[in-house]
Amino acid sequence: MPVAEMVRSYPADLGGVDRDALVRCIEECVACAQACTSCADACLSEPDDALVTLRKCVRTNLDCADVCDTTARVLSRHTEYDANVTKAMLEACATVCSSCADECGRHADHHEHCRVCEQACRRCERACQELIGGLGRGAGG
Amino acid sequence: MPVAEMVRSYPADLGGVDRDALVRCIEECVACAQACTSCADACLSEPDDALVTLRKCVRTNLDCADVCDTTARVLSRHTEYDANVTKAMLEACATVCSSCADECGRHADHHEHCRVCEQACRRCERACQELIGGLGRGAGG
Amino acid sequence: MPVAEMVRSYPADLGGVDRDALVRCIEECVACAQACTSCADACLSEPDDALVTLRKCVRTNLDCADVCDTTARVLSRHTEYDANVTKAMLEACATVCSSCADECGRHADHHEHCRVCEQACRRCERACQELIGGLGRGAGG
Amino acid sequence: MPVAEMVRSYPADLGGVDRDALVRCIEECVACAQACTSCADACLSEPDDALVTLRKCVRTNLDCADVCDTTARVLSRHTEYDANVTKAMLEACATVCSSCADECGRHADHHEHCRVCEQACRRCERACQELIGGLGRGAGG
Repeated sequence: MPVAEMVRSYPADLGGVDRDALVRCIEECVACAQACTSCADACLSEPDDALVTLRKCVRTNLDCADVCDTTARVLSRHTEYDANVTKAMLEACATVCSSCADECGRHADHHEHCRVCEQACRRCERACQELIGGLGRGAGG
Repeated sequence: MPVAEMVRSYPADLGGVDRDALVRCIEECVACAQACTSCADACLSEPDDALVTLRKCVRTNLDCADVCDTTARVLSRHTEYDANVTKAMLEACATVCSSCADECGRHADHHEHCRVCEQACRRCERACQELIGGLGRGAGG
Repeated sequence: MPVAEMVRSYPADLGGVDRDALVRCIEECVACAQACTSCADACLSEPDDALVTLRKCVRTNLDCADVCDTTARVLSRHTEYDANVTKAMLEACATVCSSCADECGRHADHHEHCRVCEQACRRCERACQELIGGLGRGAGG
Repeated sequence: MPVAEMVRSYPADLGGVDRDALVRCIEECVACAQACTSCADACLSEPDDALVTLRKCVRTNLDCADVCDTTARVLSRHTEYDANVTKAMLEACATVCSSCADECGRHADHHEHCRVCEQACRRCERACQELIGGLGRGAGG
């Protein structure tokens, strides 16, 4: 995935955002969105007795996929960058990733897709929090 | 748009969310997302001298369209509802709608699409804030 | 939803697309996407014995929501319009709407959300086919 | 990106789809969507004289990002798989990737982001066509 190449080729400055943290966060959002879409569908294909315990997991997966997709898109745009919007989306994304990781974690022993998805959510949550920590620091510089 | 019919037919309770405020907010998010996608494209079709003043408007429109779309989706799901996720997305949505309304407002005298889009953003911002105000109130009941 | 106002305010010509059919098709795509997202979630909240019969319905709803959302976005952009892309998306959208209407139709007697969603899918399928029928006609003129 | 792990952990069969071609196509769709979102924004940040030549490039990038995102989502769902829907989306995706690669190719000598994006579009177009070629072959088996 050419995220780093695309970020490097951007023709203006990035408004004080750390380039490596930005690239990592976009990559984790994109990976987490795909894992959550897959996990929701894998849950739907489990046998009847498992499926009825996975309602909340499917729902949280769907929310997490949508929020991660949108966060990746907002982070991929830097033209006249608005720190308030970016920060609010990163916070929403860290919140839903944490919630989805908790829920998938409850089923990780029984379902491999939930185990893999939990890890993707945890990595994405961490990447969002690291990027929030770095936001604005460049602005004062 | 059968938002109210769909919300009414939901087979479980809505976790203390006000039904009318929810329907209104979904409708405004969906309308705002479409207006922003249209406005971004209309900006791209303006003559050269206008286009170069509309970079930020296009960018904010694209962010606003994505965030409103995702907010409408999260709000359309009630199964094992997570108030933290909903609240974080509503706050991100109100933030980007306010930002996009401000930016479109700067061009509203020159471009009808910006004038219409500014109004859609303001209505959506208000609907998000009203729904945030009502969240959780049902939980204590 | 200010779809007609946004389409009317577009600063260039629409590349031979019928304005009324375009507005109607955007409106139906947006309405169908929301109904499908809601219906998928309502299915997830049905009692156990119903849920296990609704796997395919949830899956088709999710596909239909994504395809309708993207079709509405492509249709909302007219700048240097590409008839091949528009036509291919309209065909994909009519296909998934027909498939989702059939599946929701199988559950319409038992679940009001499936009945309302089936109707939204049928309207959207028809709007897509009418717009396909009108495409290119303007180009020869 | 754990696409292969997620596909491997799917609890049912994949309806005759080639597993490796599926994984590759999801990966290319996701990468292409991100590259196109980035390229659209990079175009918006080019100097005035370049920006006015990039209208069509921005527009095609936005369409391509939306269609690739939706294609990745449809491909990530296998529950009661519908070959007609998958095929129609793959065809729409190959069409828009080809169109976007052509347009970015026109600017590849002047803008590095267009050069990288053109390559992502070509890879995605090829992956879609290979998957179309393999669809249904398994069904007869």
